[in-house]
Amino acid sequence: MGFFRSEGVVYKPADEVNLGTDSDEAYLSPLVKAPRMAGFLVKLFAWILRSKIFGVILLYFLKKDNLIHKLVSFAELEESPLYSPLQTPEGRSAKQVYEDWLDATSFICSLSYMELTAAETPQQEVKCMESSGSPREQVQEAMECLFFSSGIASDEAKPSFRRWTIMDYARAYTSGALTPSMVAERFIKAVERSCSPESNMSFFISYDANDIVRQAAESTLRYKRGEPLSVLDGVPIAIKDEIDCTPYPTTGGTKWLHRLRPCRDDACCVKRLRSCGALLVGKTNMHELGAGTSGINPHYGATRNPYNASRVCGGSSSGSAAVVCAGLCPVSLGVDGGAISGQLPYDQPMISVPKVNLPLLKPNMLSSDITLAKYEKWFDDCSADIKLCCSNALDKLQKCYGWKTLDVTIPEIETMRLAHYITIGSECTAALHHFLQKLSFAELGWDVRVALSIYGAFNAMEYIKAQRIRGRQMQFHRKIFSMADVIVTPTTGVTAYPIKDDALKTGELDYINGAALVRYQIAGNFLGLPAVTVPIGYDKSGLPIGLQFIGRPWAEATLLHIAYAVQALYAWNYRKPKVYYDLLS
Amino acid sequence: MGFFRSEGVVYKPADEVNLGTDSDEAYLSPLVKAPRMAGFLVKLFAWILRSKIFGVILLYFLKKDNLIHKLVSFAELEESPLYSPLQTPEGRSAKQVYEDWLDATSFICSLSYMELTAAETPQQEVKCMESSGSPREQVQEAMECLFFSSGIASDEAKPSFRRWTIMDYARAYTSGALTPSMVAERFIKAVERSCSPESNMSFFISYDANDIVRQAAESTLRYKRGEPLSVLDGVPIAIKDEIDCTPYPTTGGTKWLHRLRPCRDDACCVKRLRSCGALLVGKTNMHELGAGTSGINPHYGATRNPYNASRVCGGSSSGSAAVVCAGLCPVSLGVDGGAISGQLPYDQPMISVPKVNLPLLKPNMLSSDITLAKYEKWFDDCSADIKLCCSNALDKLQKCYGWKTLDVTIPEIETMRLAHYITIGSECTAALHHFLQKLSFAELGWDVRVALSIYGAFNAMEYIKAQRIRGRQMQFHRKIFSMADVIVTPTTGVTAYPIKDDALKTGELDYINGAALVRYQIAGNFLGLPAVTVPIGYDKSGLPIGLQFIGRPWAEATLLHIAYAVQALYAWNYRKPKVYYDLLS
Repeated sequence: MGFFRSEGVVYKPADEVNLGTDSDEAYLSPLVKAPRMAGFLVKLFAWILRSKIFGVILLYFLKKDNLIHKLVSFAELEESPLYSPLQTPEGRSAKQVYEDWLDATSFICSLSYMELTAAETPQQEVKCMESSGSPREQVQEAMECLFFSSGIASDEAKPSFRRWTIMDYARAYTSGALTPSMVAERFIKAVERSCSPESNMSFFISYDANDIVRQAAESTLRYKRGEPLSVLDGVPIAIKDEIDCTPYPTTGGTKWLHRLRPCRDDACCVKRLRSCGALLVGKTNMHELGAGTSGINPHYGATRNPYNASRVCGGSSSGSAAVVCAGLCPVSLGVDGGAISGQLPYDQPMISVPKVNLPLLKPNMLSSDITLAKYEKWFDDCSADIKLCCSNALDKLQKCYGWKTLDVTIPEIETMRLAHYITIGSECTAALHHFLQKLSFAELGWDVRVALSIYGAFNAMEYIKAQRIRGRQMQFHRKIFSMADVIVTPTTGVTAYPIKDDALKTGELDYINGAALVRYQIAGNFLGLPAVTVPIGYDKSGLPIGLQFIGRPWAEATLLHIAYAVQALYAWNYRKPKVYYDLLS
Repeated sequence: MGFFRSEGVVYKPADEVNLGTDSDEAYLSPLVKAPRMAGFLVKLFAWILRSKIFGVILLYFLKKDNLIHKLVSFAELEESPLYSPLQTPEGRSAKQVYEDWLDATSFICSLSYMELTAAETPQQEVKCMESSGSPREQVQEAMECLFFSSGIASDEAKPSFRRWTIMDYARAYTSGALTPSMVAERFIKAVERSCSPESNMSFFISYDANDIVRQAAESTLRYKRGEPLSVLDGVPIAIKDEIDCTPYPTTGGTKWLHRLRPCRDDACCVKRLRSCGALLVGKTNMHELGAGTSGINPHYGATRNPYNASRVCGGSSSGSAAVVCAGLCPVSLGVDGGAISGQLPYDQPMISVPKVNLPLLKPNMLSSDITLAKYEKWFDDCSADIKLCCSNALDKLQKCYGWKTLDVTIPEIETMRLAHYITIGSECTAALHHFLQKLSFAELGWDVRVALSIYGAFNAMEYIKAQRIRGRQMQFHRKIFSMADVIVTPTTGVTAYPIKDDALKTGELDYINGAALVRYQIAGNFLGLPAVTVPIGYDKSGLPIGLQFIGRPWAEATLLHIAYAVQALYAWNYRKPKVYYDLLS
């Protein structure tokens, strides 16, 4: 038995762990022990994993080598398990909160591209929106909270390149300079160009030109009557193909799921967007079943990065990111393993769930009283370009706004990554198992066959231990948020990496690049913390680099405030992607 | 692969299930496919389960034959998982609620033996206790809510036999008729008698005569000074050996756990009892690790039933039940897989967690406006004696108080039993795994070796599915509680069954009797619903039969109210156990 026995870590109680810079907690960069695989290798690997006996042995060693046994399965810790990070406000059910979420977020995200004036007034006001109003009333209320300057306050904040925002569309429609029907026509042409053999961008899994034209005509009529439904009326919005949106099937990036699970109605968030008049332009490409982060989909093509078409977009919501980047929509919906009614039934919401807090933005009201928590060893665990760019950004924020950086230690980040993997893998298995039973594995991409084999390899004890680790991390993060407003990190550990030819048909296993891509995303996802990311520069090859701010639960207003301020410093340097479609001018 | 593939049930959405009497939902009595085993057979079974290959195969068929695959593992259901049934009130943490729990319950339980006056006034008042007071203040406040008649109102309610209550002890001490030291002396003699080779009742795992004498002397002094700490001062209270209570080790019914996990301090609930002056008289016997329901412990003896010493007590809190039954204490603490600070670290609280709601009982205030939900097929799934006795009780309650019975269907009771088993088994494994790693399996009783092997056999998907089933059942129960005040059932499906000789050394596996014992306990435990049980008669061999009332969350006041009323009708017929120690008269 000794051969099969592994020693587990004994964790000291969470409240005894030192979170200061003098902490003796070691930083463990992900020790991913799995080489990149594609083509024949990934097929062989998938085959072994599926075989009854070798599969069990291989999984045992994969778990052991990747420290899952040591850090999670056999670990000793006393914290109570936390099964859901959701903290629902005053008497509302989790389901109601989820349903609000995408609605609110879609709106907030879009506004974060708004131009704004940088200044130094320290005060910040926040309005909590009532959730009792209709979606249209909520959009209107949100609009009234936000300050839009039509001009640019300083030379530094003058954007060198700027994508069109929801407000730009609304102004163009209201002024009569353009109609939704004209935009729909341009949109359809642009998507067709993106699909041409030379471009082959693989942005969409499905879009229906007739349906888009019909919606646009209705919207155009409303504007003609002077009765647009909201500021979103006629604004093109794309939906990840994991969220139900009629008249499209919901494929989840597969070739079969829509056969077993027909899409019969809009998801709640889509319904709300539709009731506001949004022009729903189709279903975006994604990593098959969301079971990977490259966005390389063997069935619908690898989503290509508009800044460099030979590079990945990241994922799983690769298409939703790409269409906004390429100018096709000012906003799109993506999901991160969430559980929203009308969406693929992953169990646990891994999403951040904001209450609708909107900052009352007025001219000259950027606070100098912001403290950014930074864990240096983690912050620096990224490519040299990213490290330099993000460090410079912190200096600049201190210089321009007087924001302070507080050095902290966030313990057990690698343990959290493993616990997160066990959680999302197990919940994905529980959610999809009855579909997969009705299916031949042969219909899945090879990388997803491997992923699902590993996802299903965890026992109940490992799942429960992972939730204890979640409870423990929540304690660490609460303590950090008692000392600082937000945690600051790079957005990713690497910039967009190349799409290799051997990955196109089989999919690709690249856990090392994958882990670097999501290095700074785990806490937000696992602990339900809201986060915002702002572009702050480019690497040597011209690929964008982002800075991420992770906030405490319900602190979306603070995050949006910070995002505006950071963007104001960098907008002058934004570059246009190589693949870009201008639908407005 | 077909051989290993099982079909899962497809459950229809919870809100479409008919809970009326015309429901087509089938009642499935537990299909336990496991013969009784003890002695050599249980050793062989344990050995096979522990072997790497045969164990896996045996477990597969055990799960399949007991319908776990069909009803849980591969089942298709859409309800969200419910990981903890706890609903914590206004901003208090789950931990605080747990800590209050035993404290409140220990007190409420003891009072439920109080004499009271039966009458018909329909009004019922409830006082919500503040939890900010000290334990002593809370006890005082609770006392003031309760009505104690010194006499008996009607002939029918005159008890033929009545155990002494906390109030009887308090009165005896206050009047000077007795002192705590005298009670302590009698207690020690009684326990010694119960341990004699002729009796061999195995009530306690440990008790310390010196410690008891010391506590009693201090209490006696307080009464002499006229300064008792509370109504609990000097009242003998026994603690299940799963809850920390100095100066005793916490064995959890094992021979080894206290070596790996020394008891360093009182558990919170014990601290509170001690601060009220309670006379803590030792640690009661229990099923080893709580991993069974017979109370037959190969290390500390089979706890014997005071009504018939050749019968079991049930469990796992067998000793705690027996000491109250035998008159050694008016109240004792037991636990049902709960997670309270200072207790063995099972993960998930399976206990009911009442807010401290106490009925303001006054003479003549028993309500006629009570509706009892009854699921006939389930209610009748018990021995003939129990069925007759409990059915007669319902008639009597209707006749005497005008209470109504509402026939309902509670679907998927067997599915819930399996989901509950998976949950408690998996959480027990996660909680004990690091202790068991440091231990030779040979130190465990044979029945517990089998139990732990099965407990550890569930995968993460099965655990998550079990939590979905929990969420689904919560919906069913909520709907039933919108139509009725409480659910009424027999307390057990069988009365106390015989302790067989071959079980004494190895322990016993008797899943059929075990399932019948806990048949009506699963919902309360799994869904966090409070419940109360009242003795209402005896079977042909003189073993007691109880009637159980399961209430909605936080409805303890209603339950206590009901318990008083039912007891008033039956107290005239209560019988004295064969093994009984009178410490007061």
